[in-house]
Parts: sequence; structure tokens; C-alpha cells
Amino acid sequence: MTADGVATGGDLAIGVDIGGTKCLALVLRGDTVIDESRRETPSADHLAEHLIDMVSAIEERLGCRVPVLGVGAPGLVTPDGVVRASPNLRDAADVALGKRLRDVGRWRVHVENDATAAAYAEWATGVARGSRHVMMVTLGTGIGGGWVVDGKVHRGAHGFAGEIGHMVIVANGTPCPCGKRGCWERYASGSALRQFSGGEDGEVVARRAARGDADALSVMQTFADWVALGLANLVNAFDPEVIVLGGGVVESADMFLPVVKDRLREHLYSSEQRPCPDVVAAKHGERSGAIGAALLGRLH
Amino acid sequence: MTADGVATGGDLAIGVDIGGTKCLALVLRGDTVIDESRRETPSADHLAEHLIDMVSAIEERLGCRVPVLGVGAPGLVTPDGVVRASPNLRDAADVALGKRLRDVGRWRVHVENDATAAAYAEWATGVARGSRHVMMVTLGTGIGGGWVVDGKVHRGAHGFAGEIGHMVIVANGTPCPCGKRGCWERYASGSALRQFSGGEDGEVVARRAARGDADALSVMQTFADWVALGLANLVNAFDPEVIVLGGGVVESADMFLPVVKDRLREHLYSSEQRPCPDVVAAKHGERSGAIGAALLGRLH
Repeated sequence: MTADGVATGGDLAIGVDIGGTKCLALVLRGDTVIDESRRETPSADHLAEHLIDMVSAIEERLGCRVPVLGVGAPGLVTPDGVVRASPNLRDAADVALGKRLRDVGRWRVHVENDATAAAYAEWATGVARGSRHVMMVTLGTGIGGGWVVDGKVHRGAHGFAGEIGHMVIVANGTPCPCGKRGCWERYASGSALRQFSGGEDGEVVARRAARGDADALSVMQTFADWVALGLANLVNAFDPEVIVLGGGVVESADMFLPVVKDRLREHLYSSEQRPCPDVVAAKHGERSGAIGAALLGRLH
Repeated sequence: MTADGVATGGDLAIGVDIGGTKCLALVLRGDTVIDESRRETPSADHLAEHLIDMVSAIEERLGCRVPVLGVGAPGLVTPDGVVRASPNLRDAADVALGKRLRDVGRWRVHVENDATAAAYAEWATGVARGSRHVMMVTLGTGIGGGWVVDGKVHRGAHGFAGEIGHMVIVANGTPCPCGKRGCWERYASGSALRQFSGGEDGEVVARRAARGDADALSVMQTFADWVALGLANLVNAFDPEVIVLGGGVVESADMFLPVVKDRLREHLYSSEQRPCPDVVAAKHGERSGAIGAALLGRLH
């Protein structure tokens, strides 16, 4: 009980993953998800209020306070929780999300890059448990990346590692909202898949392909090839033990992963002379980011 | 003195860097280079004999045996010193270089990827001393990469990290001897610079550019832009603290580094919202790989 008589859930943690279109919030008791909710993502200047509102609704539903709030946000996130830039969030530039949530005075707050949070979740409690070198790749509105190197989350010298979606793979290629051209996420994100399929949702194309639809199969293969090309670049540079793919596309497409694996081997430098890292779907699916945010929130 | 009456230089270590065209061997006493020699690189099947011969000549010149032999080799090098593949070495496929040198019975032998060795040299005794996250990039016949992550050499899950020269930056671009198309080293290595300048040696173009020659300046700027594009991809993915550039081109071009820095800032994702890692020339210049090999040889 707190001073004002409201019970506190001591082992509970809330994790929120801020996506390009939706925010997913969930509650962990231990490693188990006991509550889950979704709302549309507002513009960046309304983000803090929106999250406070969302979390308050969860606490009301649970009938107790939750001491830990972890948030996964796309783009550049500083170690103290400022969202510096995020082309897939409207108006995001220097949003002091961590401070605004901390100022409420109700939670221990930690804000993390969403894909880094997802990497942590898959490494700590998911498919990459026990691996020393993990590359997490989330295929959503954009492409996010998170790393575990030598058994530790790797955030880089300034906390901005993992912006793999903006790796240029086609110099002077398709323009990207980030201002550059030919970024990987223009060819291999969920949005790219939607574009390849004439506006159809990625999960719908994947289901059509799984039923044997020739057009959908061709779209999925082109898409898988672009995914694999970028993965090969990163494996060449970093040689991870395992690649974990997350995002809606991956969850719904059993035929997608085998094609990616196959094409990765072909794109990889000198692939016949080396082991190819395994490519696996995130155990926590689209929840990886939110689960990781909650778990990391506990640690901070 | 050994049993056969030959003096042993207890604190000496030999480092050899196997380049695409030349092998550089040097002798370290402490951190100081006391002897240096160069020979042409033979085809891969003659490599071991060639190195044994080269090292024996050094020992003869010094009048003593050297207990440590470190070798830096381009391409995929396994932890036990097998050179798996190396498109810039003739006929290199599964050359058991470590074993063949160890079998001579005269040296403690360590074989390392050349750019990883260079990264270690610059981090341990060069421009990157004290940095936690270092990216070493060698612009030679190809492009090599070496990493220090969180104060440790990062070789990856299988020892093959750093093949950044084969990062595809122009999908379906210029064919590469590795079998793929559009690899970074087709646009940003010493060989690429030679191609841009109509066959002229990179160092010559750099000198002409430094004297204000308009054609040479234009070639150097195009080249620097390709270098920066690839660096930006890797900084986006990994966020190093400092980038160390090695290779002949870098040593001779004071005007090259400023252009690379400038273009890197432009290519970097959301560069106005973040610090840009510094780009510095290797302190040990072309010797980084050999020095690093000797230093790592001592540790093994």
C-alpha cells in the first residue's frame, strides 16, 4: 500500500512500444504478460500525455500502481530518454520523454530505442537466450536494429547504434523520409512490402503467398531478397551468432523465413567457406519491444 | 641463448602484414619498430614458405631468434589461423597458415585478420588509445574492417567480423571479384581510386590534388564521398566513438580526411541531432596491421 492507500504491484512492470502507427502497452508479472492494450500513436508533442493516460488506464484496470515503466521508442534515443529524431514519428525532435514521464513522480522510468529493447527481450527471455552475439531486426513501418555483443546490450558510443534501416544499399535509389536516398528500409520494411504489393497490407500478402498465389509469392520473394541483402551486409560487418527478425510481416509468414535464409546464404561474402548465422522469428513477435522495455525498466 | 648457441631476443616480436601486392614484415622491441622489410606477395600456396623465408632472413640480420610471430592476413581467418577465403590473395582457400608456421617449431604463432590486427594496434598504441568503441577501416587493394567494442577486440561469433568491403552499397552495381555486385570496395578502396583516376596510383592522385590539380581534386572528392557513404552505413549500425582510416591513400592525403569528415556528416542518419564520430588517420599508417599482428602474437 502507498501512503494514499493504493496497492502497489511490487513485481509488476509496464512496457510500452511506440510504433509508427500504434502504441502497444503490456504489463509483466515476472516474465508473464498479464495485460495488453493498444492505441494509435499521436504526434510526438502529445506522446508523453498519451502514455501517461494509457498507463493510468492500465493501473486503473489492474486496481494497483505499477512501479516500473519502460518505453521503447523508434529512432535516436539518448541515454536519459530524449527522443532526438525519428522519421516515422510525426514531429519527433528532441522530445524529453523520459523527463516528462519521470516528472509525474509515479514510476521508475527507462526509455530505450525500440529495437534495442526487442533485442534485449529476445536475448533475455526469447529465441536468442544463451547467444553471445545477437542481431535483432524489426521490420515495421521502418527497420529497427538492436545488438547484443559479447553477452551485453550494445548501444554504441552515444547510444545510437542500430539505425540499420538507414543503411544505403542503393546509392541514389528511392528517396527516404530521412532525407537520403536508397535506405534499406525503402526496400525491406513492412511499408516497402506494402508498396511492392500495390498498397495491400504485408500480412495479407504473406497469407496470399502462403496459399500459393503467384503474384503474392513473387512479391514476397522480391521482398525477402531485399531483406537478405541488408542482413548479409550486417553479417559481413559483424558476424552475429543469430539474427532475430521481428515485426508483423515475420509473424504471419512461414514461407518468408526460409526464403530469407536461402537468399542470405547467397548474398553473404564467401558463404561456402563459413557458417551462416541462423535467422529466427522473434519468440515474442510484435511484443518484443514492449517486453524488452519492461524488462530493461526493471534494471534501471 | 638456446641449446644450439643462438641468442633469443626475449622481448622481440615479428609482425607480418600480407597485402594484396606486398608483404610487410617488421620487428618490435617493446612498442618500437627496429627492423622493417617488404617482399612481393606470392600466390597463397607459397605463402607459408615465403613467410618462413622472410622471417628467417630477418632473424639472420638481427643475429638472434625472435620468439613471437604474428601474421595479419586479408579475408576470412579462423581462430586457429586458417585463411578460408580472400579474393585479393591469389588461390586463397583454406590455407592452414597458422599450422604450417607453427610446425616449423621456432615461433609462438598467431594469425589474425589484417584489419582486426590494425584495429588492435591503433587502439593499444595508436590514435584510438583509450576509446571504448573503435572502427578501423583499411583502404588498400580491398577494404578491411576491424572492431574494438566496449574495450575488446570484436571478432564476431565465428571470427569473421569486419568484411565491410563487401557491404553492398549499389545493388546490382559494379561486379566484384567476390562474385557479388556493388560491394563498397569497388567504389572506395585504393583499387577503386586507381580506376577513377584512369590507372594512376592513389598516392599520385592525392599529391596532384594537394597541388590544386582540378581533375585530381574532382576524383578525390568523388572517392571521398563513396568512402563516407559506407562509413555512414556502419556508423548508423554501430555508433563507434572514433573511426581510424588506414592504407596508403590516407597516409598521403591531408586534403582527403577533411572531405571524408564533411561528407560523413551529410550521409549520417539525422546528423544534426547527434555527435559524429571523429575520423582520424592511423598513427601507424601502413604499418598498423603488422604492428597489431606482432602485439597480438605476444598475447597468444
